[in-house]
Amino acid sequence: MQNFMFSNPTKILFGEGQIQALADLIPTHARVLLTYGGGSIKKNGVYDQVVNALTGKTWFEFSGIEPNPHYETLMKAVDLVKQEKIDFLLPVGGGSVIDGTKLIAAAVNFDGEPWDILAKHAPFHSALPIGCVLTLPATGTESNGNSVVTKAATQEKLSFGSPLVYPQFAILDPTTTYSLPPRQIANGVVDAFVHIMEQYLTYPVDAKVQDRFAEGLLMTLIEEGPRALEEPTNYNIRANVMWAATMALNGLIGVGVPQDWATHMIGHELTAMHGLDHAQTLAVVLPAVMQHQRGPKRDKLLQYGRRVWGLDLSDEDALIDAAIAQTRQFFEAMGTPTRLQGYGVGRESIPKLVDMLVKHQLIALGEHGLITPEASREILELAA
Amino acid sequence: MQNFMFSNPTKILFGEGQIQALADLIPTHARVLLTYGGGSIKKNGVYDQVVNALTGKTWFEFSGIEPNPHYETLMKAVDLVKQEKIDFLLPVGGGSVIDGTKLIAAAVNFDGEPWDILAKHAPFHSALPIGCVLTLPATGTESNGNSVVTKAATQEKLSFGSPLVYPQFAILDPTTTYSLPPRQIANGVVDAFVHIMEQYLTYPVDAKVQDRFAEGLLMTLIEEGPRALEEPTNYNIRANVMWAATMALNGLIGVGVPQDWATHMIGHELTAMHGLDHAQTLAVVLPAVMQHQRGPKRDKLLQYGRRVWGLDLSDEDALIDAAIAQTRQFFEAMGTPTRLQGYGVGRESIPKLVDMLVKHQLIALGEHGLITPEASREILELAA
Repeated sequence: MQNFMFSNPTKILFGEGQIQALADLIPTHARVLLTYGGGSIKKNGVYDQVVNALTGKTWFEFSGIEPNPHYETLMKAVDLVKQEKIDFLLPVGGGSVIDGTKLIAAAVNFDGEPWDILAKHAPFHSALPIGCVLTLPATGTESNGNSVVTKAATQEKLSFGSPLVYPQFAILDPTTTYSLPPRQIANGVVDAFVHIMEQYLTYPVDAKVQDRFAEGLLMTLIEEGPRALEEPTNYNIRANVMWAATMALNGLIGVGVPQDWATHMIGHELTAMHGLDHAQTLAVVLPAVMQHQRGPKRDKLLQYGRRVWGLDLSDEDALIDAAIAQTRQFFEAMGTPTRLQGYGVGRESIPKLVDMLVKHQLIALGEHGLITPEASREILELAA
Repeated sequence: MQNFMFSNPTKILFGEGQIQALADLIPTHARVLLTYGGGSIKKNGVYDQVVNALTGKTWFEFSGIEPNPHYETLMKAVDLVKQEKIDFLLPVGGGSVIDGTKLIAAAVNFDGEPWDILAKHAPFHSALPIGCVLTLPATGTESNGNSVVTKAATQEKLSFGSPLVYPQFAILDPTTTYSLPPRQIANGVVDAFVHIMEQYLTYPVDAKVQDRFAEGLLMTLIEEGPRALEEPTNYNIRANVMWAATMALNGLIGVGVPQDWATHMIGHELTAMHGLDHAQTLAVVLPAVMQHQRGPKRDKLLQYGRRVWGLDLSDEDALIDAAIAQTRQFFEAMGTPTRLQGYGVGRESIPKLVDMLVKHQLIALGEHGLITPEASREILELAA
């Protein structure tokens, strides 16, 4: 096991009816900015619950934060924050709304062009406090310090992370997910699944707790993911998916172990260039990474196949083939195609995607730094 | 799944060499009280590492905190804290040192007799900050707000808990455990195992992540516990045991699920009356609780037998018998007898133990509150 530091300050309030706790969680004299996306929270009653809990507080709202939140949009929110002297941010929505609001928090007092926080890893020394209401289990952003933002002008999708943008609290009410379209639940399950795999499917360092936790989360998503589609208002299924997605990326399963993240890096280029949903890109790239890296990942692929899928084959290569096939089949069962062609993306895009990886200096990906642009090209060919 | 709030503010620093981080973790101008036990940290080099890291800081020391820390001893430390205007507490040791120091932290500004914090659940509104160095993986106290203290005068062993006494940081260096006597490692493994069982072996509420995490921790301890005895200086084995013990009782696996704790409550009386080590009492009581409560715990006993021990028997009652037998065998393999007679405690003690449970109002134990004094008597008979 590798040395590590672990700390996660986010307070989780989980369960039906927890939104009303906002009244106590947000400081009495705060000037609050409620941020949200396209307005689905107005249809499913979440907006009304939030507004009700904010009774007596001074609050403003900013809507229209897109999926893959646009830098340009977020900068308009920064203007509003400055104008209204906002001192508490309350994103209500999924990963994009929360990620975007993290950049708002960091940008408000940033001296210079805030895009540099993403493009140049420019340091920032303060951020507005954030508390969030999660309505789409997927990214884990509700209890971590990470954010991914897209610049619409250049179609660049970049990330930043800082302990300063951990939400102080996160409210997770599984009933808020009942009205999500199937595609969004599917995306959430696939996204969380791949977050776990990025921290698990590397090489063994004898970190038994981390491995068992990761495997437990994977098994939970495999068990509950398809059921979440079949029974959208089954509370416990939604609760299990929601809690698994949070645990998948709150830092815990990744302590003391090597991490990969090549699938995410390659996937980001696919979203930026072709507009695929984030999770769709992961469903396409992960099986190809598993296939391409089956040598370096051999021991963990075998462990994954045996423990997570219960595979029992004496031929190890056949077992790895089966583990990859099961993974692909699971994504497909969630309604998420696992080939580029399933999204109308042809092989002719591959050189351009590789060029973008090079432009973003993503030239030594994976836990060993072995995934060169050439390897990324081969991976994308395997995903075609 | 039940509604829950989860928050754990303790920063964990894990791995060899982390003790030196104390220099940065403790505020520069703090007046520090280093607390410890019988002096084993002076033999194994931990004391020297800590003192070295404290170079340049103002610090004092208080030694002699016993296993099952005595209230009377801790009150002497409170006097020293007041006399030297201590404002930061640094326990270095196992669960007893850290638990005891939590009471010191709470007692310093308590108005009245601090024993009331335990005996009457008297509220306290502040506590000195604590940072700890753990040298014995077992209780999880390094990242929770719980403490158990014994009043020597009356042999009463009581507990208290508060968010105010969570350590701000916990340093976990597995190499500090190399020199532990086998009995202490065995106790630690058994203690952590039973902590998990108290949160897991109740009745199903369809909390799949919590169940998988608990099972993963149990499997890790089963795998690593005996090896920790055989290979005392194997880093990864000690690291896995240490991390499993922390995760066993930092609150995470117990969120949203019913909890039991009958084994602990009955066990505390055994320690108070007969001086058994805490873990020894758990090894005695848990198998008897499993047997006595096999009706109410049936579903979870079956799940435990199948998933944790890999039992595959068509006769469900035989499967439960086997699961209990495996548990008993595991404790015995750790060198921890699982019968009262193994510690020279005869059946004649049982009525007196039950009287003490009644005196402490522990008359409706377990996740259903069904364990009456009569049931406790039956459990102790099964443990004889």
